[in-house]
Amino acid sequence: LRAEADADADPETTPDVGVIMGSDSDLDVMRGAHEALDELGFAEQTDFHDAPDARFTYETYVVSAHRTPDLMYAYGETAAERGLDVIIAGAGGKSADLPNMTASIAYPLPVVGVPVQEKSVDSVIGMPTGAPIVAVDAGKSFNAALSAVQMLAREHEVLEDRLVAYHESLTGGVARDSRDLHDMGVAGYVASREE
Amino acid sequence: LRAEADADADPETTPDVGVIMGSDSDLDVMRGAHEALDELGFAEQTDFHDAPDARFTYETYVVSAHRTPDLMYAYGETAAERGLDVIIAGAGGKSADLPNMTASIAYPLPVVGVPVQEKSVDSVIGMPTGAPIVAVDAGKSFNAALSAVQMLAREHEVLEDRLVAYHESLTGGVARDSRDLHDMGVAGYVASREE
Amino acid sequence: LRAEADADADPETTPDVGVIMGSDSDLDVMRGAHEALDELGFAEQTDFHDAPDARFTYETYVVSAHRTPDLMYAYGETAAERGLDVIIAGAGGKSADLPNMTASIAYPLPVVGVPVQEKSVDSVIGMPTGAPIVAVDAGKSFNAALSAVQMLAREHEVLEDRLVAYHESLTGGVARDSRDLHDMGVAGYVASREE
Amino acid sequence: LRAEADADADPETTPDVGVIMGSDSDLDVMRGAHEALDELGFAEQTDFHDAPDARFTYETYVVSAHRTPDLMYAYGETAAERGLDVIIAGAGGKSADLPNMTASIAYPLPVVGVPVQEKSVDSVIGMPTGAPIVAVDAGKSFNAALSAVQMLAREHEVLEDRLVAYHESLTGGVARDSRDLHDMGVAGYVASREE
Amino acid sequence: LRAEADADADPETTPDVGVIMGSDSDLDVMRGAHEALDELGFAEQTDFHDAPDARFTYETYVVSAHRTPDLMYAYGETAAERGLDVIIAGAGGKSADLPNMTASIAYPLPVVGVPVQEKSVDSVIGMPTGAPIVAVDAGKSFNAALSAVQMLAREHEVLEDRLVAYHESLTGGVARDSRDLHDMGVAGYVASREE
Amino acid sequence: LRAEADADADPETTPDVGVIMGSDSDLDVMRGAHEALDELGFAEQTDFHDAPDARFTYETYVVSAHRTPDLMYAYGETAAERGLDVIIAGAGGKSADLPNMTASIAYPLPVVGVPVQEKSVDSVIGMPTGAPIVAVDAGKSFNAALSAVQMLAREHEVLEDRLVAYHESLTGGVARDSRDLHDMGVAGYVASREE
Amino acid sequence: LRAEADADADPETTPDVGVIMGSDSDLDVMRGAHEALDELGFAEQTDFHDAPDARFTYETYVVSAHRTPDLMYAYGETAAERGLDVIIAGAGGKSADLPNMTASIAYPLPVVGVPVQEKSVDSVIGMPTGAPIVAVDAGKSFNAALSAVQMLAREHEVLEDRLVAYHESLTGGVARDSRDLHDMGVAGYVASREE
Amino acid sequence: LRAEADADADPETTPDVGVIMGSDSDLDVMRGAHEALDELGFAEQTDFHDAPDARFTYETYVVSAHRTPDLMYAYGETAAERGLDVIIAGAGGKSADLPNMTASIAYPLPVVGVPVQEKSVDSVIGMPTGAPIVAVDAGKSFNAALSAVQMLAREHEVLEDRLVAYHESLTGGVARDSRDLHDMGVAGYVASREE
Repeated sequence: LRAEADADADPETTPDVGVIMGSDSDLDVMRGAHEALDELGFAEQTDFHDAPDARFTYETYVVSAHRTPDLMYAYGETAAERGLDVIIAGAGGKSADLPNMTASIAYPLPVVGVPVQEKSVDSVIGMPTGAPIVAVDAGKSFNAALSAVQMLAREHEVLEDRLVAYHESLTGGVARDSRDLHDMGVAGYVASREE
Repeated sequence: LRAEADADADPETTPDVGVIMGSDSDLDVMRGAHEALDELGFAEQTDFHDAPDARFTYETYVVSAHRTPDLMYAYGETAAERGLDVIIAGAGGKSADLPNMTASIAYPLPVVGVPVQEKSVDSVIGMPTGAPIVAVDAGKSFNAALSAVQMLAREHEVLEDRLVAYHESLTGGVARDSRDLHDMGVAGYVASREE
Repeated sequence: LRAEADADADPETTPDVGVIMGSDSDLDVMRGAHEALDELGFAEQTDFHDAPDARFTYETYVVSAHRTPDLMYAYGETAAERGLDVIIAGAGGKSADLPNMTASIAYPLPVVGVPVQEKSVDSVIGMPTGAPIVAVDAGKSFNAALSAVQMLAREHEVLEDRLVAYHESLTGGVARDSRDLHDMGVAGYVASREE
Repeated sequence: LRAEADADADPETTPDVGVIMGSDSDLDVMRGAHEALDELGFAEQTDFHDAPDARFTYETYVVSAHRTPDLMYAYGETAAERGLDVIIAGAGGKSADLPNMTASIAYPLPVVGVPVQEKSVDSVIGMPTGAPIVAVDAGKSFNAALSAVQMLAREHEVLEDRLVAYHESLTGGVARDSRDLHDMGVAGYVASREE
Repeated sequence: LRAEADADADPETTPDVGVIMGSDSDLDVMRGAHEALDELGFAEQTDFHDAPDARFTYETYVVSAHRTPDLMYAYGETAAERGLDVIIAGAGGKSADLPNMTASIAYPLPVVGVPVQEKSVDSVIGMPTGAPIVAVDAGKSFNAALSAVQMLAREHEVLEDRLVAYHESLTGGVARDSRDLHDMGVAGYVASREE
Repeated sequence: LRAEADADADPETTPDVGVIMGSDSDLDVMRGAHEALDELGFAEQTDFHDAPDARFTYETYVVSAHRTPDLMYAYGETAAERGLDVIIAGAGGKSADLPNMTASIAYPLPVVGVPVQEKSVDSVIGMPTGAPIVAVDAGKSFNAALSAVQMLAREHEVLEDRLVAYHESLTGGVARDSRDLHDMGVAGYVASREE
Repeated sequence: LRAEADADADPETTPDVGVIMGSDSDLDVMRGAHEALDELGFAEQTDFHDAPDARFTYETYVVSAHRTPDLMYAYGETAAERGLDVIIAGAGGKSADLPNMTASIAYPLPVVGVPVQEKSVDSVIGMPTGAPIVAVDAGKSFNAALSAVQMLAREHEVLEDRLVAYHESLTGGVARDSRDLHDMGVAGYVASREE
Repeated sequence: LRAEADADADPETTPDVGVIMGSDSDLDVMRGAHEALDELGFAEQTDFHDAPDARFTYETYVVSAHRTPDLMYAYGETAAERGLDVIIAGAGGKSADLPNMTASIAYPLPVVGVPVQEKSVDSVIGMPTGAPIVAVDAGKSFNAALSAVQMLAREHEVLEDRLVAYHESLTGGVARDSRDLHDMGVAGYVASREE
């Protein structure tokens, strides 16, 4: 990572969003972030030196605060130099320190913390004054990615358009459910859904 | 607000950060946001049509989700057109709906939710998939403002510099406390602090 | 909805009870309301312009506070004009804002909030002074419908009679269980229930 | 109470709303109900046989589920015959049984439960299926009275008008705070409030 | 029940322990009480007028505080006259009022409350000063029966002997497990248990 | 204590109720037990070999499970031989082990556990199957004493009479408050109480 | 145990770590301690008088605070004399008294408490000032054993080496997962893991 | 710190116990550790290069995980080389990461975590498998120091003697309170304490 940081890569070729998690057992929950990023046209970059064609990209690492503190340090310290714009960090357990420590080390890069379990919420959100982190609800890695893209959309209008397009499809789905439920009646709707 | 939205104002003259809260009794807690913004060189804009000289500005409103839902709607719908880049929304109580509803209505503008009381945390953070909000811990409006500026700093390097400068003064203070406590010993340190 | 509100329909032909929920995934829990209403002789109205024969009717919609705030607004604002007398609103998650927001927008129409999950209770019940809602326990949509009918029964004595009749059948069932358990003994009762 | 129930009084002369509480130490919290009823033009009736002139009235009793179960029974059983239309019942502690038991005994009269303390919420709201109660948040007796009047307003349009008038004054106050805070700026507003 | 209370039965022929529960769905949990009573030589009495031969007996009823408040009242009021010495009352839900109300009505007969679910503990234990109940932990109906027999053993030495005998068998079982686990080693012990 | 246990004292001269607590800082809370026992005509016995004249007596000790485990053991083991009939044991903190350990050691003597703080409830109530304790709510030492006397009243009818007499005075007080509040009206009642 | 304590055995032949648990049903959770000790080269000693060859050993007993208080006492009192250096004590339920009582009785031997269930944490950790225990998180018996060995490693450098070696293998595993996840991409990694 | 680590100091002259805390506002709580260490004859070392005469010493630093992550890293990495044997680390807030991160970085040195507030307990105790920490209850820094000395006492018998002497004085105090309370009676005892 330190080598990559020194590489002074063209910002157009570096990953925009870093997705990290405390253990590969968190991947089930954290995949929501990848789904949202894919939905919004981001590509996964698996080789720092060989960027995908897509304008916006993300990368993924397992980084454990308690089992690999050195790796966490290195990731946080090099994040800005490696060209990242925002980090999504997820961790589980009651001492979900990865998002907080990464936010402290990578500061002033914004970090969106994802509590992988309900019991991780307090640990992720509870930073002292002067040490900022923003958090989403337990398991909501999908929303964390939407929020990360909302931040990037401050500079990139195309991302704002994609966010709006995504939202319209979502709203349309709810409206369709609503109309069907009303017009078919409860019994009819349930029957249609079970078909 | 709708008139201001139609005014098509020069983005350089509109407030960058909107600070809203559910009741003026939340002001004690929410002033932390103003303090952080002042610390980072933002000016308060009290007249939409007459911007202060400072490059970065904020505005403040009381908006109650449950007592003035129409006002909340109007604020959220016009936020982007009125030139805001990020909203900091604080609310107290167990149904702290203002940050969530504002995030839904002002989408895709990023909203940083501030639970004004500990019991407001769940209500602020608990959004469903597809409806993003980011939150800070209860009462941490100061950090909410730091986070908001971290987002703006994606486009404005000068803000990044100010964030770093602020952090260095903070770190320096902790280091000084640490050295004093160690070198004076506990009794000596306590005595020196009571002087 | 706004068209229906303007239709100035005969109150005898409009739905008396509106049942709304934040997502069609809440339907499993909210069907308890429909069951209670059916039990008390209400009919489902699936076409606003073509009322069923029954004197008392209900309608159902999916309305998401965070994904379709405009629809929520329209539903709440037109509820009284569309002839509704009481709304039963259910929502899940930790930010279960639909019941609260609907109560604020449809005011002074009474709204019975149904927390779809245990974790939704705080968010549903926690309104500030001046913004009324009444709530039932998590998942108790059946009771929400009983409560809604208790309100309607203030004007409609026939509903009071139906409530009493329903309750007598319920009480009779408990009394029968009690006598059987006592007279058969525990072992005998368990055996009889397993047959 | 049983004598009053037998009196077969003219409904125009009986109290419309009964406010009961488990102990006179709950009165500090429950007075919010009286304030709301006074605000909406209700008069307190202190003599069942001598009604005040006002069209809408309320009465108040201390009734302890655990210390005076007989009194609770008598109150609940005679409530309908004594002409009450809705009961507001408040209780504190972790076994806040008064609202629930009254709702069961006075059924099908609607009962609005008021948890006098935060720790009373679960006990007040947690009724089993088939035994309805509606509840407000801890300490929100003011809202309980608004809800009770919303129920009465189904038959009495004048109460609907009073509810709307009350709400407009409330909304106006928030809007005024909002404008002042924005236009004066935070420092100016705080200074003006401290004057 | 009232007829039985008037029967003025010989105390030697009336049940000593009454086991009541709020719903027959609580029977799975409450059967622990029957098991303990059976273990200690109590017989179930299923006909008030025809006592079993055993010196100590118990009876069982379903009594719902919220669905059959009249039955609860009758049971509590007649308990002493019907010859009961202690009541074991179990209820589930967050408003587990049966044990509390029975303790208030049957006072000064001792009542051992059994919270059928974890969420029932607060409601069962939380009585105000002056209204006594004693409680066991959630689901511990077996212990409730041991406690009830401890109370009866104040007068009946034979019950004290049975309690001691039961306990010795229990202690012996733990001691045997302990010796086996130590002497076989963990692997050996696990293997022996899986045989 | 062991000497007293060997003394083979006349049961009429030994204390009936033992009140123990984990620290003398618990005395403020535990004094409720003494007040209830005094109210019911019990005398305090401060010298084991010199009983007061009253028929029913109690004694008090500080016994710490974690700081004086030997003393706790001695107290529990000798309790029956020293003539006690029931023990009231109070402890604070999250590991409130005194009531539980005493119940285990003094078994089959009944022990009423008093959690001295809210956070002590779980630890006091949570015994495993086969190890009985009964508990009252946090701080309710007064009720613990009432419960202890309810147990003794199984053999001593005079105690039952005293319990009933105490309760009648309690009920009368609530009824008087209720009548005053109703007849004076809220404002009049509050004024009368402030005189 | 008391005989073993008197045996005055050579410290080289006595168990270093005692693992005790409140019930053999806790063994599933407590086996983590045995796994960690095995991993670090400890042998299980199943006969006090016949030590295994390994330099470091452990023993295991079932000891119930509430069902076998005498056994618990004997174990704690003899622990130091029997040559133990540290005790790992696990218990479940809400009154998980075994670790605390053992820490009090075996003092000044260090005791590492293991809450076997989440609800046991408060009871295990909550000791009063002057009565030390250290605790690990619910179910983390593996970590309890690592901590116990960290304590022994103060005197035995070879244990420090083994702890470091164990940790390097752990760290290596996380690093490998991280590299694979990054280089294969999310989809590739998931596919490789499902093979 | 790194210079001190390289100094290769004589272990007899280096501090044995390191006390660190996240902020100097934690000092009120953490002073309990210093009091216990002073009580047990430890001296404070305020200059690494100039050890006090006492055989056992401690040092104190403020180290913030979120505000000075670099300092935390340096402290943890150099702890063993600087001659420390055990670290006591206290932190407040909901993300009390200092104890956990220090335990991870300073591994295999044992770390005793002190949650400075009740809400810090979960974050301090909740480490994943393979990353050991031991914790005391919220605010119990005094006990943390006792536990730290228990660990050192494995090698240093003199510390074991001091621990026993401290405990005897503690036990004596409780016994004296117990005897006074019993012999004076409640009223007499309270009076004597108020003098």
